[in-house]
Amino acid sequence: MSKIYNFSAGPSTLPEAVLKQAQAEMLDWQGSGVSVMEMSHRGAEFMSIAKDLHDDLRELMAIPDNYKILFLQGGATGQFSFIPANILGDKTKACYINTGAWSEKAIKSAKSYCDVIVSASSEDNKFTSIPDRASWNIDEEAAYLHYTPNETIHGVEFQTIPEVGDLTLVADMSSNILSREIDVSKFGIIYAGTQKNMGPAGAVVVIVREDLIGKAQTTGLPDIFNYEKQVKNDSMLNTPASYTWYLVGLVLKWLKAQGGVAAMEAINQRKAAKLYAAIDQSSFYSNPVAVADRSRMNVPFVLADDSLDKAFLSAAKEKGLLALKGHRAVGGMRASIYNAMPEAGVTALVEFMADFEKTHG
Amino acid sequence: MSKIYNFSAGPSTLPEAVLKQAQAEMLDWQGSGVSVMEMSHRGAEFMSIAKDLHDDLRELMAIPDNYKILFLQGGATGQFSFIPANILGDKTKACYINTGAWSEKAIKSAKSYCDVIVSASSEDNKFTSIPDRASWNIDEEAAYLHYTPNETIHGVEFQTIPEVGDLTLVADMSSNILSREIDVSKFGIIYAGTQKNMGPAGAVVVIVREDLIGKAQTTGLPDIFNYEKQVKNDSMLNTPASYTWYLVGLVLKWLKAQGGVAAMEAINQRKAAKLYAAIDQSSFYSNPVAVADRSRMNVPFVLADDSLDKAFLSAAKEKGLLALKGHRAVGGMRASIYNAMPEAGVTALVEFMADFEKTHG
Repeated sequence: MSKIYNFSAGPSTLPEAVLKQAQAEMLDWQGSGVSVMEMSHRGAEFMSIAKDLHDDLRELMAIPDNYKILFLQGGATGQFSFIPANILGDKTKACYINTGAWSEKAIKSAKSYCDVIVSASSEDNKFTSIPDRASWNIDEEAAYLHYTPNETIHGVEFQTIPEVGDLTLVADMSSNILSREIDVSKFGIIYAGTQKNMGPAGAVVVIVREDLIGKAQTTGLPDIFNYEKQVKNDSMLNTPASYTWYLVGLVLKWLKAQGGVAAMEAINQRKAAKLYAAIDQSSFYSNPVAVADRSRMNVPFVLADDSLDKAFLSAAKEKGLLALKGHRAVGGMRASIYNAMPEAGVTALVEFMADFEKTHG
Repeated sequence: MSKIYNFSAGPSTLPEAVLKQAQAEMLDWQGSGVSVMEMSHRGAEFMSIAKDLHDDLRELMAIPDNYKILFLQGGATGQFSFIPANILGDKTKACYINTGAWSEKAIKSAKSYCDVIVSASSEDNKFTSIPDRASWNIDEEAAYLHYTPNETIHGVEFQTIPEVGDLTLVADMSSNILSREIDVSKFGIIYAGTQKNMGPAGAVVVIVREDLIGKAQTTGLPDIFNYEKQVKNDSMLNTPASYTWYLVGLVLKWLKAQGGVAAMEAINQRKAAKLYAAIDQSSFYSNPVAVADRSRMNVPFVLADDSLDKAFLSAAKEKGLLALKGHRAVGGMRASIYNAMPEAGVTALVEFMADFEKTHG
């Protein structure tokens, strides 16, 4: 079998070097005699792992001092509910931009907590573009504006941070965190499930500006999802998902060794450009997303003749190109090419696609 | 250095065979070419891991067909809030038995959701015994009665399941699940964080009787913590903590290979008997818990001269006996001797304690 490249949308491929280090340290972390997953989360060894995790993320994203970093459970989906419960304060409205399946889920959850104003939506064009900023209907009385910088299923991505004036900007960065440079100071909250660009599933990072902490609802919000209480307890009010923290920490150290986010962004641009070029120069494959709004992370594409889908997936798997089946909401194929996907993986995919077209086109 | 034995209360020691298998499979699970943590949770490979996990737990605990098994995030601490939100229905009261630090936390959280009736408490004797069943003040109008079969910090354990008539019995079994045979049919809900007797941190198992499903609050309870919605989605309404599921699955297969829960219970009885005997026959060490109510899992003990605590911990560590420091709430020492602690570990501890007493007594 060829070298394996795994295009899964999440949980997704991890750097081979990270897996090898985790493997080597599985029974004995750095002479401690125990696995990281067996350590007390209150002990000196794990505290050093936790400190590195936070310090490295702060350095990689250049997170300003007036932001706190939390690692919680319940994923981004949990935050869909816990963000309004934490930061609405005495306001009753929140604005949401609807650019795909994940925006829709965030909106649905928020409706239990506040009046949701959908300030813009690309539902009418099947989420194949980002609504023009000039068309957005923003309510100045809203507590915040929420958007999804990258839509994992629909493959659309904001190329710049939207300007929203004094309104607090909240972003679900699950599928593009650490893939490109961003100015954290433009945001009130950035959150991201770990299972795409950061590590395995089981944790969600929440980067929250200090002035948003301390407005939580006093009833109905469990303490472990209350930002103020978790900040006071360094995200250890309850037992953290400690082995996931460790693995995310390894990924961050790997990312630093690659040259950090700027270096990774350049690689990601090359990978995406190569794949979209292969799709665009062929009439056998197509991608429906407006060119300016295409995701660098998740590349959905369809075959002109969808009766070939099964043959495509089966031939790809034989070549070691895994998990290319598209999400059922959009059909066809999807290649997720997060940070941990090497350029060689995209090259292998592009070559396979050309070969398949030759045979079946 | 001697062989390492890790007495951490949780996260805690795992079977060496499990860690070795996870290590061997880290980069390639059974020929799939990928790590379990890189797999789509919707793919055939991970679905087979998830099926085994559920089937093995049902078999090991003899869980009747009218119970559902969920693996969620947020730990037992999350369930302190989500149990009342899920099963109160139109009732307003719930009974709680207070036998230590973990009971107290469950009670504190429940107070946001219902009128809590503390039906019995051993607070007056510093949680060194289980309140006599005859003294319990049970309100028949309560939605359920909650108790903590084993208190991880105070080291007290129910030796039998309390009789509560028709009232729904709810148990936080985080620290003694799978350590002894129990009749699941006596319970409405059994829940347990995975990080003590089942695997690494990051998941909580909830075993819930079918008639309790479908009474959840319609607002304020996120879907991912709503039993009915997670049952319908096989605990995958959001991305599960998939690598934790895999590791718990390996622990369950190891447990089956040891002969299951009955065989493990016999070993646990021997381990606890040996350690308590060593404590009781010495005036140098003592354990404050009523003999009939002593935990088989967590054995707190103090040195008569607490100025020797540091020397004890330091000498123990040199012998490879780790994480024996007691919880700050009770001081002294604590040896957690869960399923994965081999009998040889308890023997090594008992021998060390005798040696230390000879040198310092």
